Amino acid sequence: MNISVLGCGRWGSFHAWYANSIGHKVTLWGRTGSTNLDRLVQTGRNDYLTLSSDILLTDNLQQAVQTADICIVSINAQQFRSLAKRLKKETDLSEKPLVLCMKGLEIGTGKRLSEVASEELGSHAPVAVWVGPGHVQDFVRHMPNCMVISSTRQKLTENLVQTLTGPLIRFYYGRDLLGTEIGAAAKNVMGIAAGMLDGLNYTSLKGALMARGTHELSRLIAAMGGQAMTVYGLSHLGDYEATLFSPYSNNRRFGEEWIKGKQTSYLAEGYYTSEALMNLSEQYKVELPISRTVYEITHKGIDPKAGLESLFLRSLKDE
Amino acid sequence: MNISVLGCGRWGSFHAWYANSIGHKVTLWGRTGSTNLDRLVQTGRNDYLTLSSDILLTDNLQQAVQTADICIVSINAQQFRSLAKRLKKETDLSEKPLVLCMKGLEIGTGKRLSEVASEELGSHAPVAVWVGPGHVQDFVRHMPNCMVISSTRQKLTENLVQTLTGPLIRFYYGRDLLGTEIGAAAKNVMGIAAGMLDGLNYTSLKGALMARGTHELSRLIAAMGGQAMTVYGLSHLGDYEATLFSPYSNNRRFGEEWIKGKQTSYLAEGYYTSEALMNLSEQYKVELPISRTVYEITHKGIDPKAGLESLFLRSLKDE
Repeated sequence: MNISVLGCGRWGSFHAWYANSIGHKVTLWGRTGSTNLDRLVQTGRNDYLTLSSDILLTDNLQQAVQTADICIVSINAQQFRSLAKRLKKETDLSEKPLVLCMKGLEIGTGKRLSEVASEELGSHAPVAVWVGPGHVQDFVRHMPNCMVISSTRQKLTENLVQTLTGPLIRFYYGRDLLGTEIGAAAKNVMGIAAGMLDGLNYTSLKGALMARGTHELSRLIAAMGGQAMTVYGLSHLGDYEATLFSPYSNNRRFGEEWIKGKQTSYLAEGYYTSEALMNLSEQYKVELPISRTVYEITHKGIDPKAGLESLFLRSLKDE
Repeated sequence: MNISVLGCGRWGSFHAWYANSIGHKVTLWGRTGSTNLDRLVQTGRNDYLTLSSDILLTDNLQQAVQTADICIVSINAQQFRSLAKRLKKETDLSEKPLVLCMKGLEIGTGKRLSEVASEELGSHAPVAVWVGPGHVQDFVRHMPNCMVISSTRQKLTENLVQTLTGPLIRFYYGRDLLGTEIGAAAKNVMGIAAGMLDGLNYTSLKGALMARGTHELSRLIAAMGGQAMTVYGLSHLGDYEATLFSPYSNNRRFGEEWIKGKQTSYLAEGYYTSEALMNLSEQYKVELPISRTVYEITHKGIDPKAGLESLFLRSLKDE
């Protein structure tokens, strides 16, 4: 099958590598002028992997979409709306499945990326999300994992699972798109909290973080009309090993470096997601104590130690 | 308050240390001839901590119970029934609260330890359990944690929380004794599975283990009449940091050493619990794929790699 991957950063390049490894004909697109794309064109590799030479690299969006049976998207979540607008305007997606491999929510609106896709591409666009545990660094060393594909259309989900499964990734079918997207995005916020606990030498509180973090998000998802249990599946809890414990986790590291006062050259995805979750907290009247604490530490300058201690070590209450 | 701790191993000696640290008058009991007790008597310390000299050490069970307002029990779970028989026969417990700080189920019956207590001491015995995350090694270095106290009597739970809380341990009230006990015991089985994944270089599958492990136990607890959500609280999921990730976890280490073929000088508690869970699986007709795999690897000699791969990497299915 012809698969085009839009976005050539760490995950985009991995998706191209992976699709190629299971026998698909792959095109990898990056923005004109993208340093990631330039490096791949020049060297065929990046910090994580080496691409097979039969993967076509291009900055021509129209061509990438035209040749594709399936488009996989993996860019910065906050830039997705503008890419979706370009897809609508410059390409002929028609009924090609769009698989979103990003974990984020739109700042200012709290919207899920599949909602953004519907708004920009029409509500009939066949959109799915592909999320779950696993680090590029592990996959390219042939460490397998389970992931999840979710959409509102069972047949689409099944076709994508069939097309994308391989020895390295075994897919579960997700039935709750809303819960899958919220959970996948929000796990990055819990990853920042975990890193902060590590930085404060409170690593042993990551257990309580797991129990309380899933709980607040489960309540949010239920209030939004999703299923309360989705957050306990692969898209969120199942991603905690990779996000709360792994040295490879960007968000965990971001949190730890925040505590240690290191200048971080990047803002982890969970930084933005914590802000978007505040939109949802207000909109759906659900308290999100952990997400709010991460937001207030990173955006409002509250003291991390005091903030995190008050979350876990102050009150006596029911579970 | 007068608190007697029955059992002077790693956790028993910690409970004595902790109760003393928050101002209680503490007696620590060990079996006559216990090497742990002898060492504490002779040196005042063990591998984990140094006991304050105002903690009374004794092998006189009658005396330990007589002077106590509250008895805390922390011994090998499989020996609890015989201790309970001794308590009934040799001491006058009357209405003194018995706080069970053990994570196990009785082999052969699958019974919870509070059930064993009821059977041996009468159904009106005021029994509670105290479980949750935390390692002795972390607590004695003043790393705080959250734990949970649960019983079937709200007033008893509240009194115990009031008596036992301190800056190092903040308690949540547990409302589901059955779920708390099953979850606390079963987390050791998940710990063994986690160690096996580490040993097989499948560490990244610990995320999937967390999602699927909680799921099977949630179903078991619901079938037994407990609350399906309890397993996602501190007693089980909240203990995963300590059990699935910490270098201090006995059960995780046991699993890892099993894979590496090292002679283990001990059998971790989860070894026994996996057998007791098979009793419950049969009794309540609930499949427990992960627990069964751990049981079959450790008791029936099936191949760990094949067994664990078939759990996580074979089938395509709904979450």
